[in-house]
Amino acid sequence: MYALVERMYPLCRSITGDGVRATLKIVGEYLPLQVHEVPTGTQVLDWTVPQEWNIRDAYIADPAGNRVVDFAASSLHVLGYSVPVSATMPLAELRSHLHTLPDHPSWVPYRTSYYKPDWGFCLAQRTLDALPDGEYEVRIDSTLADGHLTYAEHVVPGQVTDEVLVSCHVCHPSLANDNLAGIAVATFLARALAERTPYYTYRFLFAPGTIGAITWLARNRERVDRVKHGLVLACAGDRGSLTYKRSRRGDAEIDRVLPHVLAASERPHRVAEFTPYGYDERQFCSPGFDLGVGSLTRTPYAGYPEYHTSADNLDFVSPEAMADTLAVCREAFAVLDRNRRYLNLSPYGEPQLGRRGLYEALGGRSDAKQAQLAMLWVLSLSDGLHSVLDVADRSGLPFDTVAEAAGALHGAGLIKG
Amino acid sequence: MYALVERMYPLCRSITGDGVRATLKIVGEYLPLQVHEVPTGTQVLDWTVPQEWNIRDAYIADPAGNRVVDFAASSLHVLGYSVPVSATMPLAELRSHLHTLPDHPSWVPYRTSYYKPDWGFCLAQRTLDALPDGEYEVRIDSTLADGHLTYAEHVVPGQVTDEVLVSCHVCHPSLANDNLAGIAVATFLARALAERTPYYTYRFLFAPGTIGAITWLARNRERVDRVKHGLVLACAGDRGSLTYKRSRRGDAEIDRVLPHVLAASERPHRVAEFTPYGYDERQFCSPGFDLGVGSLTRTPYAGYPEYHTSADNLDFVSPEAMADTLAVCREAFAVLDRNRRYLNLSPYGEPQLGRRGLYEALGGRSDAKQAQLAMLWVLSLSDGLHSVLDVADRSGLPFDTVAEAAGALHGAGLIKG
Amino acid sequence: MYALVERMYPLCRSITGDGVRATLKIVGEYLPLQVHEVPTGTQVLDWTVPQEWNIRDAYIADPAGNRVVDFAASSLHVLGYSVPVSATMPLAELRSHLHTLPDHPSWVPYRTSYYKPDWGFCLAQRTLDALPDGEYEVRIDSTLADGHLTYAEHVVPGQVTDEVLVSCHVCHPSLANDNLAGIAVATFLARALAERTPYYTYRFLFAPGTIGAITWLARNRERVDRVKHGLVLACAGDRGSLTYKRSRRGDAEIDRVLPHVLAASERPHRVAEFTPYGYDERQFCSPGFDLGVGSLTRTPYAGYPEYHTSADNLDFVSPEAMADTLAVCREAFAVLDRNRRYLNLSPYGEPQLGRRGLYEALGGRSDAKQAQLAMLWVLSLSDGLHSVLDVADRSGLPFDTVAEAAGALHGAGLIKG
Repeated sequence: MYALVERMYPLCRSITGDGVRATLKIVGEYLPLQVHEVPTGTQVLDWTVPQEWNIRDAYIADPAGNRVVDFAASSLHVLGYSVPVSATMPLAELRSHLHTLPDHPSWVPYRTSYYKPDWGFCLAQRTLDALPDGEYEVRIDSTLADGHLTYAEHVVPGQVTDEVLVSCHVCHPSLANDNLAGIAVATFLARALAERTPYYTYRFLFAPGTIGAITWLARNRERVDRVKHGLVLACAGDRGSLTYKRSRRGDAEIDRVLPHVLAASERPHRVAEFTPYGYDERQFCSPGFDLGVGSLTRTPYAGYPEYHTSADNLDFVSPEAMADTLAVCREAFAVLDRNRRYLNLSPYGEPQLGRRGLYEALGGRSDAKQAQLAMLWVLSLSDGLHSVLDVADRSGLPFDTVAEAAGALHGAGLIKG
Repeated sequence: MYALVERMYPLCRSITGDGVRATLKIVGEYLPLQVHEVPTGTQVLDWTVPQEWNIRDAYIADPAGNRVVDFAASSLHVLGYSVPVSATMPLAELRSHLHTLPDHPSWVPYRTSYYKPDWGFCLAQRTLDALPDGEYEVRIDSTLADGHLTYAEHVVPGQVTDEVLVSCHVCHPSLANDNLAGIAVATFLARALAERTPYYTYRFLFAPGTIGAITWLARNRERVDRVKHGLVLACAGDRGSLTYKRSRRGDAEIDRVLPHVLAASERPHRVAEFTPYGYDERQFCSPGFDLGVGSLTRTPYAGYPEYHTSADNLDFVSPEAMADTLAVCREAFAVLDRNRRYLNLSPYGEPQLGRRGLYEALGGRSDAKQAQLAMLWVLSLSDGLHSVLDVADRSGLPFDTVAEAAGALHGAGLIKG
Repeated sequence: MYALVERMYPLCRSITGDGVRATLKIVGEYLPLQVHEVPTGTQVLDWTVPQEWNIRDAYIADPAGNRVVDFAASSLHVLGYSVPVSATMPLAELRSHLHTLPDHPSWVPYRTSYYKPDWGFCLAQRTLDALPDGEYEVRIDSTLADGHLTYAEHVVPGQVTDEVLVSCHVCHPSLANDNLAGIAVATFLARALAERTPYYTYRFLFAPGTIGAITWLARNRERVDRVKHGLVLACAGDRGSLTYKRSRRGDAEIDRVLPHVLAASERPHRVAEFTPYGYDERQFCSPGFDLGVGSLTRTPYAGYPEYHTSADNLDFVSPEAMADTLAVCREAFAVLDRNRRYLNLSPYGEPQLGRRGLYEALGGRSDAKQAQLAMLWVLSLSDGLHSVLDVADRSGLPFDTVAEAAGALHGAGLIKG
């Protein structure tokens, strides 16, 4: 995963343009992708697909002709969606187009102006402070023109057509944790899920933030009911502990599964309530859709100083952290896939488990085996209202033990799924 | 307010009679009142309007002819609703008609006998202890005769006919906190609300305790459904902190508003559960009516030693405390008036706030403005189920910020009320 | 009660056979019992009534002919439901049929093999360790033959036909706490309830564990809806504090009553959540029946080292502990019997209690009497939704005070039951 992040890092992504296409091409080497191109001007819910933005070069040259800020050094240096500019102006006039982080004088901020035509440069405060007065050449060789918005899907077919949506944003330029790590974890998660046919169908969405999610929702409005559960993956690679942010519904099944898995694994972690801010859960959880989509990050949105700065670089993410995020996703979906509701077909009194070989013959011992207890719990709560996870939570038994007990009872014809 | 309390203090109020009329006349100088006179014998719910009681003079004269207890000195000295008496009797016989507070030997208690014909005097234990044996002249020049029960209403018309009921009892004699302070706060609250047309129609009720509230309920039984919220004001002037007592329903809207305002203001305060004891919330919250009427006091009912004694005097209440109670009432009704439920008219994905000038153009910053967050919260929760207060509570944003965000979204046509 | 336990102690009980009959004969001296005999082979829910087991003698004789393990010394020495055996074998071969408790070398365990034909002996580890090698004579003079399963009922008729089920298992051999103490408490509880006609009809069930409860449920399937509340009594005599285990429903009325009574009595106690393990609440609470049946024990099921060993002997139980268990049962059923829901017939405003002699005439005092408060609470909450116990819990008043207030109001025609 780290190698994938490294390859994607230098590209200049935005909500449209060739940077996104190049990124999806790399992901496509790991995973077959269905790439969608949606023309500029397409009405998508309350929004319109904007013009496509591409950029070839951009710099500020000082009075001596030295490139003091250069897009070639980092894609962060240009305000995203900058209109083209080619001018010479005194530093005083240039200043209103320069973005810095005074509190972190060596870091370059990440800034955009998608929906208001503007141009600008992002640079270190330290760089700015060193600039002498004088006439500066500024040049942004960008294009804003009718084109397309690009996003991609990958589907892992399951036993049922009900879907789990895994979404990650692909619009940020050279920021490693936000969200190259999320893209990498999603990519390897899709490969892992395909190892054997999962219960649910898993749909992976690689799309630019906000407008990409809105475009996907607009184009899938009639089919969105298939999405029963979902997870937005972002900031998946920093060294902080994991944070699960609930869906707007707060009690969706995914809101039970992730906290359960995180708690059962005894990892340090945090469970946060929904807020209508953050990543594309904002769109998936908008009240008209109100999907059961939560969000998994390590340190959450805007929760670290390096957020949206040049310090969110390749050193900021670690292979171990990404592997840990991936492991939790796999555990969570392994639980989700088995979290069925059963119905006890022999609900009057206990069925005689002993004659079915499910209960030990010797009576009187005080230490009931967990497997046996799990079967009694499954029988007790399989009234069509309780899921395997409900049984695990109420009994205090591990999910796997309960799921296996349910399997044994199902095999004996005592419960039906 | 304190001046109003001072003027009302000397009057001898009871559940009927000229003391109530004189009190309402003084309030009427501040506020136009609709005064109701209900004849003796009128059936009101399970009760009957009693005979009217008036008193001109009352005293106990000692063997030497000195008035040792004198109604002219304090209206508390006579047992409320005493039948007339004119007699001479030895102290031993008189004792069964004398009420004192042995634990507070210098205080005079407040006692009544509304529904059982009786007569008596209330005096300081210290006074009683000093009385020599001998023959005492006792005289109560009172009248119990068919007449009327008197109560008054004042209405502040609102934008809608749904009503907020503000009620205070006017039947206690010379007790400053209980309830002249309540009357004064209600009076000035009505004046403040009239400064601009409120959303709700506010109905102020000045009525004797229990029988007055019951009479009002009986005469307004068909119209009582208009009362959507209510507050009983009592003990509004002592130096203790504020106490809000919930309605019987416990989760009425007023039960959300008052605790929210008290907590948000960071005043020390207490929120108490409903009990079917106290002031006229007993009647408004009786299970047949079950109105959303809470009660606001400073130190609650019977919660201070001076309660129902001569020590609840003009020194016991302070202008500052009354002003504080008034301020909280105004804040609470300002919240209540704006606590609407909205419906997001663009619930599929987020509407594009930026093109409506409601979202800042520069992207990438990590510090979202509160106003912007508030709009996202209002959009997220405006599904017809959540009120502005719900949004404030769930988001942790100030009520005013959320209400303003709702106003901006309403102005932009994105939500409807 | 202790004398009853002493008489039953030596008998060799099992899930069928003459030991159960002899036990019920003794109980029958205290209480008229309706004894049921259900033939071997009868289908009962998912189970079948097994063959009847009786035993006359059993021993192991060492190479010298000494009886080193002897059924005559304790009924625990034989594995319950052992098939007959008469053989001589070396100790090495015998070992697989011997059950001990290595952690408690002087105690004899209690073991059974009801549904898998087997034979065995239970003995102290210390005894086993002392056995020399050599040939041992083993003999179990038992019979497994078609016969009957025996259980008994006793009914205390109440004012209504709705029933309270009190159940205790009678299948354990010489174990004092588990469950001779439970049988004794149930017996004396039935006698106490009959002292005056209770509100509910109380049905006492003395039946072997699991198969007995299942047999009773099978034979009463159509009438089981009459059981509105129930309590399984077990481990009723040890010196630990009381434990109430909730029904599967968790919020059945009995789940309110027992915790209330235990808390109000200020006894140390524990309230445990339902688990589908333990005594016959497993059957009564199976999801098809889902009866409101909780369980009362002192130290709960398998919660003490002496559990299911020879150390659960006559010294392990005390008359005081049994008396305490009985007292709590009586208190609980006294609450249950009076825990009615009433309807306020005068719900608009407070009814005038004073003219009915239910309210003190002198007004103004701050110390309302509890009886008066209780009446106001009953009137306030008697909307058909709240029981007397609800009123007690919400008001903080003692149940008895509230029940008496309800009685007074009922007598005055102000509420109906």
